[in-house]
Amino acid sequence: MKEISKLMDYRPDIKVIDATLRDGGLVNEFRFSDDFVKHLYNANLRAGVDYMEFGYKADREMFDETKFGPCKFCDDDYIRSIVGENNTDLKIAVMADVGRCNYKQDIHDRADSPIDLVRVATYIHQIPTAVDMIENAKSKGYEVSCNIMAISNAQEGDIKVALDILGKSPVDVFYIVDSFGSLYPEQIARIADLYCDMAAKYGKKVGIHAHNNQQLAFANTIEAVGDGVDWLDATYSAMGRGAGNCAMELLLGFLKNPKYNIYPVLQFIEEHMTKLREDGITWGYDLQYLMTGLLNQHPRTAIQFTKDKRKDYSEFYKEILSQE
Amino acid sequence: MKEISKLMDYRPDIKVIDATLRDGGLVNEFRFSDDFVKHLYNANLRAGVDYMEFGYKADREMFDETKFGPCKFCDDDYIRSIVGENNTDLKIAVMADVGRCNYKQDIHDRADSPIDLVRVATYIHQIPTAVDMIENAKSKGYEVSCNIMAISNAQEGDIKVALDILGKSPVDVFYIVDSFGSLYPEQIARIADLYCDMAAKYGKKVGIHAHNNQQLAFANTIEAVGDGVDWLDATYSAMGRGAGNCAMELLLGFLKNPKYNIYPVLQFIEEHMTKLREDGITWGYDLQYLMTGLLNQHPRTAIQFTKDKRKDYSEFYKEILSQE
Repeated sequence: MKEISKLMDYRPDIKVIDATLRDGGLVNEFRFSDDFVKHLYNANLRAGVDYMEFGYKADREMFDETKFGPCKFCDDDYIRSIVGENNTDLKIAVMADVGRCNYKQDIHDRADSPIDLVRVATYIHQIPTAVDMIENAKSKGYEVSCNIMAISNAQEGDIKVALDILGKSPVDVFYIVDSFGSLYPEQIARIADLYCDMAAKYGKKVGIHAHNNQQLAFANTIEAVGDGVDWLDATYSAMGRGAGNCAMELLLGFLKNPKYNIYPVLQFIEEHMTKLREDGITWGYDLQYLMTGLLNQHPRTAIQFTKDKRKDYSEFYKEILSQE
Repeated sequence: MKEISKLMDYRPDIKVIDATLRDGGLVNEFRFSDDFVKHLYNANLRAGVDYMEFGYKADREMFDETKFGPCKFCDDDYIRSIVGENNTDLKIAVMADVGRCNYKQDIHDRADSPIDLVRVATYIHQIPTAVDMIENAKSKGYEVSCNIMAISNAQEGDIKVALDILGKSPVDVFYIVDSFGSLYPEQIARIADLYCDMAAKYGKKVGIHAHNNQQLAFANTIEAVGDGVDWLDATYSAMGRGAGNCAMELLLGFLKNPKYNIYPVLQFIEEHMTKLREDGITWGYDLQYLMTGLLNQHPRTAIQFTKDKRKDYSEFYKEILSQE
């Protein structure tokens, strides 16, 4: 059992990362208004959030600019139009997907960019390219983290090898990512132990990015906090792909560091997130996401079920059972 | 850390209690149609649920019969009209609140009743009356459990004294009840340890009834399973007062005993629970419940906020902050 002091006290090493524009952007093609993004930036500043992720550095050769909002590409100029020179304690992050980012060209020197942190997202079979991206971003002066996605489908031995390779790279943070929302807190405890051991060996930090398919995104995140994980992803109203993420309002309610403040988060949700829902943007826990989580499947079938406004849950369950 | 075998294997001692009619009834004045209740009974049978709670044994002197559906009173004849002689493995439960139940008169001998289990619900200052109710129900032949409510506001020393008194009573099961949805899994682990130690001393079992104010009802329930708690309350679509309970569909997805089957639950939700929501019955996680949970308050203010269809979350937060 964890020490009782951990419930009353706090670790100053904890970092909170707002991933609303990035994971939430997957729900609305990154079509956030400048007004929304500016107010979100302001809310994060007041709430004491440590990093704000603006979206992806997506390759314009692969993605048609007219089909997405600016957070899909995160040009330096766009970010500057929101944050100016960002002379604040809130750092700016972007995500770069292995195979979907022209990183050598599109990620500029940190000295010329408002971005502080580059988050490399990789599947386990793409680690060598991830390392090249990490080295590239590091050489340009960024903090760098690495998300290994879909680990609930990976062998523990392979994860160890991947962490060993990443450990030898200049990456700063290893991220535990429960892409399918299929992991229970007891499994998170075991995975966190593995990641924290490897992180200690190589002098890295560990983060977690959870999905809410089984209403465990917040529970898994605070389980990880108890296990020594320091970097915590959350989104306002849990906005994110499919069942969404760990809710910022739940996480800041839990964290005891006095620098965090839940009130600006509540205000932002009231003024901006409720409107997104009224406009028909849909995300969050529902039976179809429970089912793909339970079966450890990618949520794409459940997302399609949602888009089609289907309500025949039991028929859907039979469909995805037979895919296995 | 818990043994890994617990994730793959199962404890045959686990019992699942469907509390949909009872805790869900608090949302709609117990106005469930006979058709709904019959289909729910049938779904529970097929899903392998162990106990189905039909509602309260409420005192007709205190509660006007015309203002509630039959599950508020759970007359033997009413239950029989649904389940006949109930020659099945699914047992029937009712709840009896200390101070709101004329138990000597309204709870008949088990030999004359379709009810198997009487669940006595008490606040910690009412334990002597609870014991009288337990002894009365036991003498009539029932299995008996006891819910100590609102323990997040009680001193640990007082809980120990209460469990010691209950331990000496003929009650079969002690229930951990997170009435305000304010407890985190780490706190549940500590409380479960205390309850399980006392239960072992007196030869009792331990159960858990969780609320979803912080989206932790399921997480707290499975935490408790790992800690040795055997009796697990859940409701279809998490229907229950305020933020609702642990969802049956999440719980049966988690439990590994092959006797449990999630499919009839999914079917019932599709056919019956969706309709309740469409009819305007409202329950489940929302910001106002997060707030009362976080502040360890009774959710009555949040329930009123919901009824009033208010959306000024940040104003509400200020209101309940100043009540403390």
